[in-house]
Parts: sequence; C-alpha cells; structure tokens
Amino acid sequence: ENARQLQAQRDTLTKKLQETETRNKDLELQLAELEQRLEKSQTEQEAFRKNLKTLLEILDGKIFELTELRDNLAKLIECS
Amino acid sequence: ENARQLQAQRDTLTKKLQETETRNKDLELQLAELEQRLEKSQTEQEAFRKNLKTLLEILDGKIFELTELRDNLAKLIECS
Amino acid sequence: ENARQLQAQRDTLTKKLQETETRNKDLELQLAELEQRLEKSQTEQEAFRKNLKTLLEILDGKIFELTELRDNLAKLIECS
Amino acid sequence: ENARQLQAQRDTLTKKLQETETRNKDLELQLAELEQRLEKSQTEQEAFRKNLKTLLEILDGKIFELTELRDNLAKLIECS
Repeated sequence: ENARQLQAQRDTLTKKLQETETRNKDLELQLAELEQRLEKSQTEQEAFRKNLKTLLEILDGKIFELTELRDNLAKLIECS
Repeated sequence: ENARQLQAQRDTLTKKLQETETRNKDLELQLAELEQRLEKSQTEQEAFRKNLKTLLEILDGKIFELTELRDNLAKLIECS
Repeated sequence: ENARQLQAQRDTLTKKLQETETRNKDLELQLAELEQRLEKSQTEQEAFRKNLKTLLEILDGKIFELTELRDNLAKLIECS
Repeated sequence: ENARQLQAQRDTLTKKLQETETRNKDLELQLAELEQRLEKSQTEQEAFRKNLKTLLEILDGKIFELTELRDNLAKLIECS
C-alpha cells in the first residue's frame, strides 16, 4: 500500500517536472527572442543616431556657408 | 527494498522539480525585466521621433523663410 | 570810316555774346539736369542699400534660428 | 564823340564776352566732371548688382542643399 502511494507520488512529480521543463524551454525561447529584438533595436537606433550625426554635420556646414554668404553681403553693402 | 528505491526516486524528483521551478521564476523575472526595458526603449524612441518631427517642422519653416528672403533679394536686384 | 568799323565790331561782339550766353544757358540746364539725375541715383542707391541692410538683418536672424535648431538636434542626439 | 562811345561799348562787350566764355569753359568742365561721376557710379552699381546676383545664386544653392537635408531627415524619421 505504501509502495503504491509512493509510485503515485513519483508519477505526479514526473508529470509536473515535465510540465515545468516544457514551460522552462518556452521561457528560454521567449527570452532569447526578446534579447534578439532588443539587440536589433539597439543596432537600428545606433545606425539611426549615426545617420542623424551625419545630417547634423551637413547642417553645420550649411550654417557655416550661410554665414560666409552673410559676411560677403555685409562687405558688399559696406563698400557700396 | 522496492519502497526504498521509490522513495529515493521521489526525493530526486522533488529536488529536481524545485530547481526547475527556481530556474522558472528567474526566467520569468528576466523576461519581465526585458519586456520593461523594451517598452521603455520604444517609449523613448517614440518621444525622440516626435522631437525630431518638431525639429523637421521648424526646419521647414526656416527654409520657407529663407526662400522668402531670397525672393525679396531677387526683386530688389531686378528693380535696382 | 573808323566809326563804321567800330560799329561792325560792336555788332559782331553783340552777336557772339548772345551765342555764348545761349550756349551758357544750355550748359546750365544740362548741368542742373545731370545734378538732378545724380541726386536721384544717390537717393535710389541709399534706399537700395537700406533694403539690403534689412535683408541682411533678416538673414542674421535666420542663421541664428538655424543654429538654435542645430543645437537642439545635437542635444537630442546626445541624449538618445 | 560817337566814336568814343562806340569804343566804350566795344570794350564793355569784349569784357563781357570774355567773362561769359570763361563761365562757359567752367560749366563745360563741371559738366564733363559730372558725366564722369555718373558714369563711374553706374559702372559701380552694375558691378554691385552683378555681385549681388552671384550671392543670390549661392543662396539658391544653400536653400536647395537645406531642402535636401530636410528630405533626408524626413526619410530617416519615417523609416525609424
């Protein structure tokens, strides 16, 4: 009778362990997937930031060139 | 003798189940944390994008105003 | 005979003086006209120069505003 | 007596003619000088206008380049 009880406990535990391990594998998969998404998102953000920095440098150049133009116009008005 | 064997199996299974459940909780915590980070990152990106759109609209305005200035300069030169 | 000669001289002188005075009036008219044209031209140039100065000030403002935009973009990129 | 009168008239006319001719030469000089100033002023104005046209073309280029920058920023925001 005691052996039958123990066998029932063992079977229940085995089943529960299998369920928990299945859940575990699922969680690990979700985690890996999320880590990949986060990494991809960070890579994209970094590329985006780099592109923005390039645009910022171009804008710097344009402002510099407009300032040169402004100075030339000022000189022209002064000398006229 | 059979009962002792079953008891040993039950203990082993119980221990393994506890370990697996601990690992499970840890994974769930990691997953929740990562989801929060991803969500925060998306919120930040959205705010960033919104700020960039505002800057784009300001840039549009500046280009429009420079074009008006250009047209006024052209008219002035034509009429001089 | 001397009197006739003197009369002839007087008539010639009178005619020449009239011609010279006519030429004089014509020159004075031309001079007045030219002075008016020069004055008008200077007035127009001054107005032109004033309009250009106004455009220069507007350009200064636009460059300042573009620089503010540039700084805001730089801050946004730094904080992202 | 008549001859003396005529002689006096001739002398007066001669003197007046000389004065008028002197005034004439002075006016012609002033006129030539003013014409030269007007011509110089027109040449300068033409050079000034040409320089302004060059600045206008440079401004056109800068506005075009800022518009390209604006479009690239817009694309970048759309694709992020």
